[in-house]
Amino acid sequence: MRRSPVTVLSPDVLAAQGAEAGATYARLAAKGLKLDMTRGKPSPEQLDLAEGMLALPGNRDFVTEAGEDARNYGGLQGLAEARRLFGAMLGVPAEAVVVNENSSLAVMHDCIVWALLKGVPGGAPWVRQEIAFLCPVPGYDRHFGLCEGFGIRLIPVPMDEDGPVVTEAERLAADPAVKGMWCVPSYSNPSGVTYSDATVQRLAGLKTAAPDFRLFWDNAYGVHHLTENRPAPHDILGLTAAAGHEDRAFIFASTSKITLAGAGLAFFAGSKANVAWYLEQAGRRTIGPDKLNQLRHTRFLRDLDGIHRHMTGHRRLIAPKFEAVLEALDVRLGGLNLARWTKPEGGYFITVEMIQGSAKRVVELARGLGIALTPAGATSPYGRDPTDSVLRLAPTYPSVDDVRTAAEGIALCIHLAALEAGGLERAA
Amino acid sequence: MRRSPVTVLSPDVLAAQGAEAGATYARLAAKGLKLDMTRGKPSPEQLDLAEGMLALPGNRDFVTEAGEDARNYGGLQGLAEARRLFGAMLGVPAEAVVVNENSSLAVMHDCIVWALLKGVPGGAPWVRQEIAFLCPVPGYDRHFGLCEGFGIRLIPVPMDEDGPVVTEAERLAADPAVKGMWCVPSYSNPSGVTYSDATVQRLAGLKTAAPDFRLFWDNAYGVHHLTENRPAPHDILGLTAAAGHEDRAFIFASTSKITLAGAGLAFFAGSKANVAWYLEQAGRRTIGPDKLNQLRHTRFLRDLDGIHRHMTGHRRLIAPKFEAVLEALDVRLGGLNLARWTKPEGGYFITVEMIQGSAKRVVELARGLGIALTPAGATSPYGRDPTDSVLRLAPTYPSVDDVRTAAEGIALCIHLAALEAGGLERAA
Repeated sequence: MRRSPVTVLSPDVLAAQGAEAGATYARLAAKGLKLDMTRGKPSPEQLDLAEGMLALPGNRDFVTEAGEDARNYGGLQGLAEARRLFGAMLGVPAEAVVVNENSSLAVMHDCIVWALLKGVPGGAPWVRQEIAFLCPVPGYDRHFGLCEGFGIRLIPVPMDEDGPVVTEAERLAADPAVKGMWCVPSYSNPSGVTYSDATVQRLAGLKTAAPDFRLFWDNAYGVHHLTENRPAPHDILGLTAAAGHEDRAFIFASTSKITLAGAGLAFFAGSKANVAWYLEQAGRRTIGPDKLNQLRHTRFLRDLDGIHRHMTGHRRLIAPKFEAVLEALDVRLGGLNLARWTKPEGGYFITVEMIQGSAKRVVELARGLGIALTPAGATSPYGRDPTDSVLRLAPTYPSVDDVRTAAEGIALCIHLAALEAGGLERAA
Repeated sequence: MRRSPVTVLSPDVLAAQGAEAGATYARLAAKGLKLDMTRGKPSPEQLDLAEGMLALPGNRDFVTEAGEDARNYGGLQGLAEARRLFGAMLGVPAEAVVVNENSSLAVMHDCIVWALLKGVPGGAPWVRQEIAFLCPVPGYDRHFGLCEGFGIRLIPVPMDEDGPVVTEAERLAADPAVKGMWCVPSYSNPSGVTYSDATVQRLAGLKTAAPDFRLFWDNAYGVHHLTENRPAPHDILGLTAAAGHEDRAFIFASTSKITLAGAGLAFFAGSKANVAWYLEQAGRRTIGPDKLNQLRHTRFLRDLDGIHRHMTGHRRLIAPKFEAVLEALDVRLGGLNLARWTKPEGGYFITVEMIQGSAKRVVELARGLGIALTPAGATSPYGRDPTDSVLRLAPTYPSVDDVRTAAEGIALCIHLAALEAGGLERAA
């Protein structure tokens, strides 16, 4: 957050604020809290929503819709019933979906290593040249780490309330090294922004120097609504095809935050050529996925309505936690003009932007209270936020009471860090 | 099979054999069989042995030995109880084991792509140079395909009754391009040979030009005994360490042919440095494996005795099928000296070696009977058997009666192909 024009406070008021905040900090520190707001993990209560899955598919239930034995080898693309169900969730036809094991990150990893070693449809192996990815910021640290691990250069692209700033993406994509772009189009990690239709349309038609450029379209939060609005997923396959870039999007998703975080299903989806390519590579890697887990999912969720009903259960558990954070931030920081934060309508995160140069200090102060936060900088490429101003809060795992306590502590730390930095005095 | 010295048969005898074989072929062809002896797939009855797993772990059963929630993210290396159980199976300590998803082929794939892009401990990324792997022949087509897919050159190494011919392996490993060697040490695919202790010791100490040479030690059939003998797995970690090559072995295994072929667990095991390396790479790929499936396995199998008891169930189902094949081969071909075959004490395959230049014809003749065989050449690198003499039979999936019928048909085709080739006449 740039230093915004605020009324300069009198020394007396600042001293009073400092005294109160310091005393509150000491009182809170004495409580010996142990709260974790670092990762987007479902709470035990959320996992309980999928309790019925623990005994599924159940005795003698292993025959698929096609009459095949789900216990045995094979079925590389996944069961038809699973592809239909999750195709509906992703807004793509069943034949555009490949069902994998439990991790969408793993699917992204595999696409990257195959692109590096074999090339994607329409291109040579990436390993032969320098490669760069566009990274909307703030973004997801594991996306960045995946690229970094394979020596792929990370180029930040700013986000606004419509998603990535497309003019900037297009300017950067004039470099033929730029082969990919990370996108979390719905309730983005961590800003909570859902890309506008106009932004998505422009990304679908983006001019890029690399003919084998790919949108790494991570639809991680497509059905993870926090309100009663349920915007449909963007029709990225249709839009890229209409723009003459039929093979541009690699779509990823999982049920990690729908059913069971460790034991869900992950999906790849894409154009005909991309699916054929994916299956060709995957067919060397495995004889087939865990189809019993696919049966377990289709038996439990049944249809798209079933998914939405299930997600309503999540919303009832999560939404109060988001409200608790927003309220705590508002109570302490609402009038002070020293931080702003997102008010997401879905997803797993709240992003707080505070006075430049203070995010690391806030993490440190919070640690002193027993509150673990994602390291400052984690939402930027290479873990370096040049403004040191952005923090990601993950309120899903702790109880509502703990989330409120943690958020009050974090708001306090933001206030204290600003007082320490003289941010309030110097603001003008 | 080289043409062995046989008594030259008289034209009358040959004519009689030809007439009988031709008539039998016509009679069998008329039956319209549809039998598949291609892949090492467990039969439905074998999968039924794991019926109890279909409702596991069961209601509210998700807490691990360490008191953690197996439903949530994390636990990259796998549950302690799963690593202990399958470490015992592999003859390595629990800390040497990483538990993955359902496919050991996938674990091998990942090791290869990480070796190519990142290098293994003690070496540079393989992708910077030409790479070759030693391939004991006959071997497993998916091993070969994995290498071929990434441009890794395949170099055949002959097998004898003790395993790969080590002098030949050592001669070839003087080439620094040779970075790896495929090994299936127990009941090898497809010969059924178990490597002798001496061979394993010599492989552990093999002189190689490449300092980062790895044995890709695929212990796919370590507990898959067909007799009451249960030889323990080779202590490859101990032997390589004793030979001064502590990091030489990457061990792979799975429960695909123990519990459920599509929904088992796959393992990586190795030295401390190799496990650390594997986890570093895997940690970029995934947040953790499906730990509910690990609980499902430990709840069901319990301990090493449980695994052995379970495998006895498999043996009771499989051994009669192997016997049926061996008997059918013996009945028709026993006295004719035109084929020889392995009599495995474990594993999933019988290898038949017949007159040179006849294996493709046998596959074709069998197809005419409705019997599907693995393509001739599949057991050699690049699918090319220069002698065209080796076929792999996979008798586990069909019923005993079908296996017997198929084996009779195959024996007949081997006989017919030899008669066609004049192999009997010309043998001398």
